[in-house]
Amino acid sequence: MKQNNGEIRSIGVFDSGFGGLTVLRALLEQLPGADYTYLGDTARLPYGAKSQATVARYAVSSARFLVEEGAEYLVIACNTASALALDAIRDAVRVPVLGVIETGANAALASTATRDVLVMATAATVESHAYAAACGERGLRAYEKACPLLVPLVEEGWIDHQVTDEVLRIYLAELLAESAEKELSPDTLVLGCTHYPLLRANIARAVPEGIRVIDSADVTAEQVASAIPHLKGEISVAQGSRLFYATDSVSKFRRLGEKFLGTPIDEVTLIDLGG
Amino acid sequence: MKQNNGEIRSIGVFDSGFGGLTVLRALLEQLPGADYTYLGDTARLPYGAKSQATVARYAVSSARFLVEEGAEYLVIACNTASALALDAIRDAVRVPVLGVIETGANAALASTATRDVLVMATAATVESHAYAAACGERGLRAYEKACPLLVPLVEEGWIDHQVTDEVLRIYLAELLAESAEKELSPDTLVLGCTHYPLLRANIARAVPEGIRVIDSADVTAEQVASAIPHLKGEISVAQGSRLFYATDSVSKFRRLGEKFLGTPIDEVTLIDLGG
Repeated sequence: MKQNNGEIRSIGVFDSGFGGLTVLRALLEQLPGADYTYLGDTARLPYGAKSQATVARYAVSSARFLVEEGAEYLVIACNTASALALDAIRDAVRVPVLGVIETGANAALASTATRDVLVMATAATVESHAYAAACGERGLRAYEKACPLLVPLVEEGWIDHQVTDEVLRIYLAELLAESAEKELSPDTLVLGCTHYPLLRANIARAVPEGIRVIDSADVTAEQVASAIPHLKGEISVAQGSRLFYATDSVSKFRRLGEKFLGTPIDEVTLIDLGG
Repeated sequence: MKQNNGEIRSIGVFDSGFGGLTVLRALLEQLPGADYTYLGDTARLPYGAKSQATVARYAVSSARFLVEEGAEYLVIACNTASALALDAIRDAVRVPVLGVIETGANAALASTATRDVLVMATAATVESHAYAAACGERGLRAYEKACPLLVPLVEEGWIDHQVTDEVLRIYLAELLAESAEKELSPDTLVLGCTHYPLLRANIARAVPEGIRVIDSADVTAEQVASAIPHLKGEISVAQGSRLFYATDSVSKFRRLGEKFLGTPIDEVTLIDLGG
C-alpha cells in the first residue's frame, strides 16, 4: 500500500449504480482540486440480491479497473459492496480503500451520547447486518431497518412529494417503536444507503427532535478529506478532472446521474467488465 | 410442434420471479386437473433492465428446462420475457408457447368498443412498446404508462394501504390526462405486469367508471383453458401435481411466493441454469 497519502491526487469512486454520485457530490464540495474517476457498474446492478462471492467478484473487477485508470485512493460508495466485499477489494489492490459503512459507523460514534443508533438501509444491507457489526466494534448498539420503498421513490423522482413524506413517516414510526421494544435510546440515525441523501430534507422534516441524522455521503467525504489533508488545502486551485464510466446505457447514466450529482454530466464512457 | 392439444396434461409456467404465480393461481382455479411445473429464474432477475440478447438467452434456457421436465405447453408469465424473447422461445422448443402480452392484447380487443386502451406496466415493458405493438396489430391504439412504484409496494406487502391507494390515484390521473392529450377515448385498462393482480381491489377502487380493467393473469388462464378444452372438462377430477423450481433462495421463494399464489408452497427445488 502507498504509505504517503501526501502524493495522492486521483480518487476513484465506485458504486453498482448512481447512488455513489451523492458521495462524489460531497467530495467535489470538500476536495474540488482532486482528480476523480467514477465507475457505475450499471450492467450488473442491483448487487443487493446477489451472493457474497458474486458481489466480491464484481466489486474487485470494478476496483481494479479504477486503479488501472490511475486512481490512488478508492472510495467504495456502495453499501452492499462495502458490506460484502471490502476485504476482498483491499486484498486485490495496492491503494487505500474506504467503505461507506465504516465511515457511517465512525460518524455515529462521534455523534452519539447514548451509544444507541438507528440505521435506515436497503433490505440487502440490513440482512448483512454490516452496520450492526461495524457499530458493535465501536461499542455502539445499532437497530437496522430495511426501507425498500425509498430507492424506487428517489428513482421515480418523487423527492418533494407527499407520498414520500408519508412513507418516511411510516418507516420512522416503525423504526422508533421497534427500537423502543429493544430498549434502545437512540440519539443518532444513520442513512445507510447512498440514495437517501436526496431525501435529506424530507428526512429532516420527519425525524423527531433529539435525533441527529448522519448523511453517509457527507461523512465519507469528510473522512477522505481528513485522510488526504494536502488536497483540502487546495480548494482555491483549479478544479481537477472528472471522468465517468458505466457498464450499461450511458444515456441513462447521464440522465439519472445528474439528479444524484446535482450538476450536468457531460460525457460517460461505456466499458465492458464481463458478465 | 405438437399438433393435438387434446394430449396435453402438463403445463409449464415461467417467470423471472414471483409475479407469474398470479397466473398460476388463475390457472389452478380454471384448470385444477392439469399438472403444473413453475420456474422462477430468481437468481437472474430482474430481467427488466437487461438487453434483449441476455433476456432471450435466460428465457430460452428456462423454457428448455421446463420442457425437459415434461411440460407439454408453456405459459410465459413474465412481461419482459414475453416482450423480448417469445420468438426465441418458440424457435427453441417444440411445444405451444403462450405469452402474457398477446393474451392481454387479445382481451383488450374483446373488451374495447372505442378501440383505445390504456396499459399500466413496468418501465422495461413500456420501453419495449410490446403492448402498443400487439394492440396495433389488432387495430387498437394503446397508451402505455410506466408505474415503477407498484412492484416495490406489492413486494413490501403494502396491499390494503393508503399509500398504495394514493400512488395508484396519482398514476391513474396522469395516465388519463396524458392519454386525453393524445386524443384517446379509452374504455379498457390492461394490467401489464404479473405483480398487479395483487392490487386488483385497489385498482378497482381507483379507476373511473366506464373503464374496464383487464387482469392479464385471469385472461391468460382463460386463453389456456380455451386452447386445452379437454382439461377444462376435468374440473371435478383429482387435482394434478404442482412442482416449483427456483434458481435462487428457496426459502425466500416460499415466503414471498405464497403471497402471490394465495396458498402455501410446500416445497421448492433449487436448480442451477448457469450465469
